[in-house]
Amino acid sequence: MKNEMNIALIPPDNIPPPGATDLEIARAVTPKPVIEIAAERLGLLPHQLIPYGHYKAKVDLMQLDVSQPRGKLVLVTAMTPTPAGEGKTTTSIGLCDGLNALGINTSVCLREPSLGPCFGMKGGAAGGGRAQAIPMEDLNLHFNGDFHAVTVAHNLLVSLIDNHLHWGNELALDPRQISWRRVMDLNERALRNIVCGLGGTAHGIPRESGFDITVASEIMAVLCLAEDLHDLQLRLSAMVIGRRRDGSVVTAGELGADGALTVLLKDAMMPNLIQSLEHNPVLVHGGPFANIAHGCSSLMATRTALALTDVVITEAGFGADLGAEKFLDIKCRLSGLAPDAVVLVCTIRALKMQGGIAKADLALPDVVAVEAGSVNLLRHIRNVQQFGLTPLVVVNRFPTDSDEELAVIQRCGLASGVRVVSAEHWARGSDGAQALALAVQEQLSAPKPELTLLYPDEMPLDEKIYTVATRMYGAGEVQYSSAAYRQLEEIHQLGFGHLPVCIAKTPYSFSSEPAILGAPVNHTLPVRELRLMAGAGFVVAVCGDIMTMPGLPRHPAALNIRLDERGEIIGLC
Amino acid sequence: MKNEMNIALIPPDNIPPPGATDLEIARAVTPKPVIEIAAERLGLLPHQLIPYGHYKAKVDLMQLDVSQPRGKLVLVTAMTPTPAGEGKTTTSIGLCDGLNALGINTSVCLREPSLGPCFGMKGGAAGGGRAQAIPMEDLNLHFNGDFHAVTVAHNLLVSLIDNHLHWGNELALDPRQISWRRVMDLNERALRNIVCGLGGTAHGIPRESGFDITVASEIMAVLCLAEDLHDLQLRLSAMVIGRRRDGSVVTAGELGADGALTVLLKDAMMPNLIQSLEHNPVLVHGGPFANIAHGCSSLMATRTALALTDVVITEAGFGADLGAEKFLDIKCRLSGLAPDAVVLVCTIRALKMQGGIAKADLALPDVVAVEAGSVNLLRHIRNVQQFGLTPLVVVNRFPTDSDEELAVIQRCGLASGVRVVSAEHWARGSDGAQALALAVQEQLSAPKPELTLLYPDEMPLDEKIYTVATRMYGAGEVQYSSAAYRQLEEIHQLGFGHLPVCIAKTPYSFSSEPAILGAPVNHTLPVRELRLMAGAGFVVAVCGDIMTMPGLPRHPAALNIRLDERGEIIGLC
Repeated sequence: MKNEMNIALIPPDNIPPPGATDLEIARAVTPKPVIEIAAERLGLLPHQLIPYGHYKAKVDLMQLDVSQPRGKLVLVTAMTPTPAGEGKTTTSIGLCDGLNALGINTSVCLREPSLGPCFGMKGGAAGGGRAQAIPMEDLNLHFNGDFHAVTVAHNLLVSLIDNHLHWGNELALDPRQISWRRVMDLNERALRNIVCGLGGTAHGIPRESGFDITVASEIMAVLCLAEDLHDLQLRLSAMVIGRRRDGSVVTAGELGADGALTVLLKDAMMPNLIQSLEHNPVLVHGGPFANIAHGCSSLMATRTALALTDVVITEAGFGADLGAEKFLDIKCRLSGLAPDAVVLVCTIRALKMQGGIAKADLALPDVVAVEAGSVNLLRHIRNVQQFGLTPLVVVNRFPTDSDEELAVIQRCGLASGVRVVSAEHWARGSDGAQALALAVQEQLSAPKPELTLLYPDEMPLDEKIYTVATRMYGAGEVQYSSAAYRQLEEIHQLGFGHLPVCIAKTPYSFSSEPAILGAPVNHTLPVRELRLMAGAGFVVAVCGDIMTMPGLPRHPAALNIRLDERGEIIGLC
Repeated sequence: MKNEMNIALIPPDNIPPPGATDLEIARAVTPKPVIEIAAERLGLLPHQLIPYGHYKAKVDLMQLDVSQPRGKLVLVTAMTPTPAGEGKTTTSIGLCDGLNALGINTSVCLREPSLGPCFGMKGGAAGGGRAQAIPMEDLNLHFNGDFHAVTVAHNLLVSLIDNHLHWGNELALDPRQISWRRVMDLNERALRNIVCGLGGTAHGIPRESGFDITVASEIMAVLCLAEDLHDLQLRLSAMVIGRRRDGSVVTAGELGADGALTVLLKDAMMPNLIQSLEHNPVLVHGGPFANIAHGCSSLMATRTALALTDVVITEAGFGADLGAEKFLDIKCRLSGLAPDAVVLVCTIRALKMQGGIAKADLALPDVVAVEAGSVNLLRHIRNVQQFGLTPLVVVNRFPTDSDEELAVIQRCGLASGVRVVSAEHWARGSDGAQALALAVQEQLSAPKPELTLLYPDEMPLDEKIYTVATRMYGAGEVQYSSAAYRQLEEIHQLGFGHLPVCIAKTPYSFSSEPAILGAPVNHTLPVRELRLMAGAGFVVAVCGDIMTMPGLPRHPAALNIRLDERGEIIGLC
């Protein structure tokens, strides 16, 4: 899906051949042994690395103290994306390669891809073109098993819940109010709503339930926000699994499940190390959804990278309204981290889409549409500025971009007082990211900006939601369903009003309606449901239709994935 | 569960302390780096090994030709077991250590344990006492991800099936006749019977379905019988997923799923290498159920071990009526392998149980009960002899065994013309397995016995079932349910009559009734259902109640599993 740009238009350095797929480009590069990357680039000793094959590894956090940061942190975020994405991952990798080419010891922290979309239609998530993380086949398949560990930990908790019901239900859980569903790391439409426990008294208590995709598991968010194994267990223990008839909550800890879950997640807590096509260190760890969770790679990976390299690039899911806001108001708030610089990715295509152009016509030149769409970029710039940060706008270049169109973005930068640079890392790797890298280097040599969170912990939850809705989304009001209003009261009464909010809405609009483009104002944010994520440490406000289990398309990618006659994987993206 | 013997009664060589658990014993030994085991013991070059951490690895079969066997093959089987098992795994490891102590280059091939029982009540499956495979925590948890790969491959196939129904059902599958269920590697009583696809038109087609445990997946059997990736894909393609209204079958290949499934299983096809407590090579790979599948570790592991070492020990699940019969009539038949020697494990406890003693009283001396139970051992000996093989009977010693009781087994050996030796590897490692190792060495120096399979391929399926039932189980007749009889006809009509049969019955009796002890004759084997496993390459005859998804007990082991203050796992077995 990320291959819509024809690489032949920008001459490559011999490899790859014109029209090559991401997988072919990745395969044309011989990776360095991961122990070499770890030793030479991160200064790790052999016992501090747990190899998983020759080209991927985990950093052994039992053997390494990552509490002392030495590096500076760069957040990569984006304007409102097209469904194909605007290249945050690609830009993060390209920037890492670019800074390393300048001699600055840099690493990049990314999220792990989910298996579901790989077999559906999104394709892999390892960057693209000449800004990729390799080995991309491993990354996009089982990788080092973290998602499998989250899946089985999540589902062990359900099996303990159903077993508890079966053997007499000492905790007096209401089978109708068990909020802990099951997960699977696949696109499984037919499992969204099930009835389980059928078949008679020997086979459990019948009840309604369903499956979400693994990245939607609260355990994924917990894993990505935990400071260490002890904190992990405390968070797992605090997770709410359901309620009693009197409305009181029951936690995983009350069921006695937290120890076993921690054991299952012990290895998954350690960040994974791979490399970019230019052999720079890439930490890929965790992958919480960017709607019903905070959408960032793990805190352990960020801390590890900050302890071992001078500059750390990291990205947050979707546009800045969701990704950057959650990175700052959730991950930075809970951890005390703060970015030293922010890169805001935009594309001419996305500007055109925000200017009202249909997906099929995004490659046609259209300055008027770019101009019309630029209000979206301007809002994202202002949003980042509201946190006390000054974004650097980077145009992720496509060969179809015209100079007139690019000039529109330059004018946006001027109007907002931010710098704009172009980058062609997709086609040219670090060579294409030189201007970007130099601009980031300059930004990092300035004094660290002071991060201003959007709201204080002690603000009531509804005011927090109102603050995000009005200041980030341009909404005029927030409307609660009666259920959401009741949940708001309950969460306050349970003593969780101090948590930050995690707003689950469409990434395709500042509003909750994907079709509303540009920079809408005075719209209404409808809160359908509030979910207490007591383990992860935030309250999710579900706004509009949010799907936590995708379906497969009519012709899923799975049908094209196979081994070729040499035993190599084809069709993976 | 395997710790019921008090190690303190037989003085250990300093370690472990009296009363130590298997986990404590395992932790008292410092493992050697797996690359050292691979290089020194298997002659593998660095590029032929894929390390998964420092102490476990996969053997890279893309870099190694394992088609030329150099070693001799020893099958370890057992008499009818008690629920705690009679120590086949322990004996296999002890024998491997014992032969290595004699200077014979020996490896052992074992099945991988399932996560479900680990969190239920069985505990781990890495041997026990001083005959264990390490690192046992990794082996008993995610290990190298094979079971996760089988789980996700199996479930991807279901999601493709449901997606096919959702988008119009071109293949005209009958939603009521989809035989491919889902799997999970957990004990999940409440998922045995579900209704999925609920919630309206956007969420699939409602239908009845359910989950089995991962080891019951046909894909697990396929993985363990495939000769290479090409054969793997052919077998995956042949798997029957359901039927049309006209009764014709639909396969995974017709759905186009075989390529993606092969890709998901690519790494899982490579055998895993760990070590025994005495640093001898242990290949642990695959783990198909021993009732509805053939219950042996993978063919790839056996071939790898035979190519790299002089003697290969392997075990087959349950007693010889199930395990040895399937090892020979399924795995040996399909692969052309044949054992050079057979070791038949018995215990005084199991003989007492077969003699009618209750589980709680098995530690009390009772020569009369041992004598009464010895008919069971005699039947197993004769069964192995029917294949043209001469078993070596090994008594897996417990401290409570009396000389009079042991003499009963010696008399069984005399009566059957087979040798009987005692072994104390559980308490003393290779020192305790010297007599066993010497006896096996002697057996291996004799000419290779000629394996006679129980029935030829061309025998009709019902006659094959009758042959196993009468010659192995002592049954007088086989009775088919009307459904099973119809399925028998169908499978013949579909052209699969040439496949071997895999009988799924209780392991606790030669009959289909767990309560019928000893060596019953003239009983009736009731065939409830026949299942065509066209990918695995056998036809399962389900006899009596066979559970393909276990449940958790009232107090599951999961509730005791946790990390201690040093971050080490406790409570795992």
